[in-house]
Amino acid sequence: MSARILVVDDQPANVRLLEAKLQAEYFDVCTAVDGFAAIEAAKLEQPDLILLDVMMPGMDGYETCRLLKDEPRTRHIPVVMVTALDQREDRIRGLESGADDFLTKPIDDVTLFARVRSLLRLKTVLDELRHRESSDALSYVMSEPIGDLDSVARAVVISGDPRAATRYAAAMPAQVRTQVETDPVTGLEAARSNADLLIVDLTSPGFDGLRLCARIRADAATRQLPILAVINPGDTPSAVRALDLGVNDIIHRPVDAGEMMARVSTQLRRKRYADRLRTQLDESLEMAITDPLTGLHNRRYIASRLHQAMESSNNGGAPVSLLIADIDHFKSINDRYGHEGGDYVLRGFAERVQRDLRALDLAARYGGEEFVIVMPGAGLAEARGASERLRASIASEPFDLGDGRSACVTVSIGCAQAEDGESAESLLRRADEALYLAKDEGRNRVEAAHSAAA
Amino acid sequence: MSARILVVDDQPANVRLLEAKLQAEYFDVCTAVDGFAAIEAAKLEQPDLILLDVMMPGMDGYETCRLLKDEPRTRHIPVVMVTALDQREDRIRGLESGADDFLTKPIDDVTLFARVRSLLRLKTVLDELRHRESSDALSYVMSEPIGDLDSVARAVVISGDPRAATRYAAAMPAQVRTQVETDPVTGLEAARSNADLLIVDLTSPGFDGLRLCARIRADAATRQLPILAVINPGDTPSAVRALDLGVNDIIHRPVDAGEMMARVSTQLRRKRYADRLRTQLDESLEMAITDPLTGLHNRRYIASRLHQAMESSNNGGAPVSLLIADIDHFKSINDRYGHEGGDYVLRGFAERVQRDLRALDLAARYGGEEFVIVMPGAGLAEARGASERLRASIASEPFDLGDGRSACVTVSIGCAQAEDGESAESLLRRADEALYLAKDEGRNRVEAAHSAAA
Ligand SMILES: [Mg+2]
Ligand SMILES: [Mg+2]
Repeated sequence: MSARILVVDDQPANVRLLEAKLQAEYFDVCTAVDGFAAIEAAKLEQPDLILLDVMMPGMDGYETCRLLKDEPRTRHIPVVMVTALDQREDRIRGLESGADDFLTKPIDDVTLFARVRSLLRLKTVLDELRHRESSDALSYVMSEPIGDLDSVARAVVISGDPRAATRYAAAMPAQVRTQVETDPVTGLEAARSNADLLIVDLTSPGFDGLRLCARIRADAATRQLPILAVINPGDTPSAVRALDLGVNDIIHRPVDAGEMMARVSTQLRRKRYADRLRTQLDESLEMAITDPLTGLHNRRYIASRLHQAMESSNNGGAPVSLLIADIDHFKSINDRYGHEGGDYVLRGFAERVQRDLRALDLAARYGGEEFVIVMPGAGLAEARGASERLRASIASEPFDLGDGRSACVTVSIGCAQAEDGESAESLLRRADEALYLAKDEGRNRVEAAHSAAA
Repeated sequence: MSARILVVDDQPANVRLLEAKLQAEYFDVCTAVDGFAAIEAAKLEQPDLILLDVMMPGMDGYETCRLLKDEPRTRHIPVVMVTALDQREDRIRGLESGADDFLTKPIDDVTLFARVRSLLRLKTVLDELRHRESSDALSYVMSEPIGDLDSVARAVVISGDPRAATRYAAAMPAQVRTQVETDPVTGLEAARSNADLLIVDLTSPGFDGLRLCARIRADAATRQLPILAVINPGDTPSAVRALDLGVNDIIHRPVDAGEMMARVSTQLRRKRYADRLRTQLDESLEMAITDPLTGLHNRRYIASRLHQAMESSNNGGAPVSLLIADIDHFKSINDRYGHEGGDYVLRGFAERVQRDLRALDLAARYGGEEFVIVMPGAGLAEARGASERLRASIASEPFDLGDGRSACVTVSIGCAQAEDGESAESLLRRADEALYLAKDEGRNRVEAAHSAAA
């Protein structure tokens, strides 16, 4: 996958060198010579990745990274810090300022490109969701900063070497509950049961950590789970392979506790962001098809599902029937008991509808005090039976109004079975005509529709 | 990225060979020895890719592929046909049965893995959306088969060789409107302006087609655009590089018109599926925050936005004010003009609200005939002015009821400015108290809230 990469370095020679390397691999490169220019370029060009020099006059890379991660328009772009330093403190400082990785000059090309590919792959998937941030429905949720890691998380450390595993576990941040596994099979099970992060040791002999990582990635249940792999220093082939298999981050032995904490925190923060994005999306989708007052489906949803059920019925599938139910004299319920009393009746009505229906029936509040129920697979006799049961259930017992009072409610129902080649509009019209008849004949009644041909 | 791959072949030796190759690359492999077993395994194991033998006793690979593509639970899984045949007719037949590619035995490993990586990458991105199909909000839309290509599509053929470009254009399906570009710069522009598919020629000398493909992929505007690359037979390095850069499919010179049509149709069908998924998702998200009757925002959305605006105000940001507007005597409007007349008034009211507001104000139908307007950046004086303008605008002119009649409507409004550290609930309560006062003092009035401290 190609991508746009922003190269930031105060030395023009360094910029040119990295630019040439990246262009030879067909990346699109834009450049900046200081932190201020980098932030402007990132906002404007929306690169997929930023390679950021640490030592720059004016504003250094740490501060630049912190500002990039504070800015809503650039927060999601992965940052790799590039530096001549390789001191523990510098690495940790870089990670703590929000960087995704830390590379030491002179840059090893193989490591660079494996890391770039890995970060771009993760970004591509998240972008597909993040693109929905531009929709107002998500923007207000995701505009919060990714923030600090405050809640408890669960990690699993998997290593063939129990002593190493215990050491890694001890290096985890305090709010992370860590479980140690020394066997790949039980390790995989632990990963599947509600973990937030895995530490997989690729260094212990007789323990195929790469295979375990591949399994975790091949399994839909654990595909999104962040993996931090422990490798031996200088083992570039394992690092490259691990990143290509979808491992999220690498840490070298001997594992430094401070670096472990910084890398673990980064992974957990990113997971929390992705989880929040997915949850919010799912909740919004749920809202889009739900009537907020009753929790039944809404008109839009039932219309689509009716359309679909009738198409399948017209293609030789099972029959489909439809009920339209309208609460009798609802206006006088509202007049007598107020708006809130009316809402109690609507919610109570929805509850009885759901209690009386078969699992595959679909019920929606169609508007006001009108409800539509689609019964896939049901013929007219069955629909009439269901209508009669619902009518009786509504009339049988007064509705609680939440304030000690209660109201007697009845419902009129029209039902109809879809005929060959009939449209949804025609079926709805016939059921509505039957409902009208039921009202006309005195209410608290069920009427079945005439055939469309008649 | 690792993944689960289903290998289907009636010869156990072939199965073992492919299994070993794939496992050596850390793929998770499951196997089947005939078409029936393949379909069952695909439903159950949900592999990420299927390698499917063509020549099998009982049901051949073509029929198996067709059934896999008809079945909702397996439709999204890419299929690569594997065969000893390499006749034009077989290739086309495979593609027409829904396969994504066609590999000839003995399989060249480099080509195999480049293709597998490419298909998996595309699937991973789409899975992130497709996962939302499990939400009811999308399932009814996406349960339709991908179907035939019926609507008009726009393709751009980009080649340094005008005669070749014209030949490729002539080989496109009839419903595809094709534009020919011989220059990469104008080609890129054409790609950005509403194309559905690109054909990029990687064979003409002096024309860096790979660089062009990389540019197209690096640009967010064209990142999702399907690319079909034309390469010389035997040029495996270009094919691998192209697939790694994100090219969707490859066709060899001399280009066979039938194969071109089959590959183009496959790409357009997939694009249509992905577009539909994205559109549906965006529409559902929009629905989740919209009041269906008036098109204003709904209560859920305004509550979140208010919360957000107040947080930023409490963190030293600009002031925030709030209006609650309630249509006067709405029940008697409903009584006199019916439910439909009432809906006309609500929609007309929403129109005047939107006409009178500043662009950054947020208006929502809060429930019934009650509306809430959040004014970020506005102090109490400004909110009072806006309230008065809205009140006057509602009272100034009767509302058209769509049936020749019209109704005179007035509104009462309470407004309040958020105070330091105040909660959204408290602000809403103060505005509501002011509204109550406006009603009490005779309606068609604006009242400003008392300070929370008072
Ligand atoms: Mg420097
Ligand atoms: Mg065979």
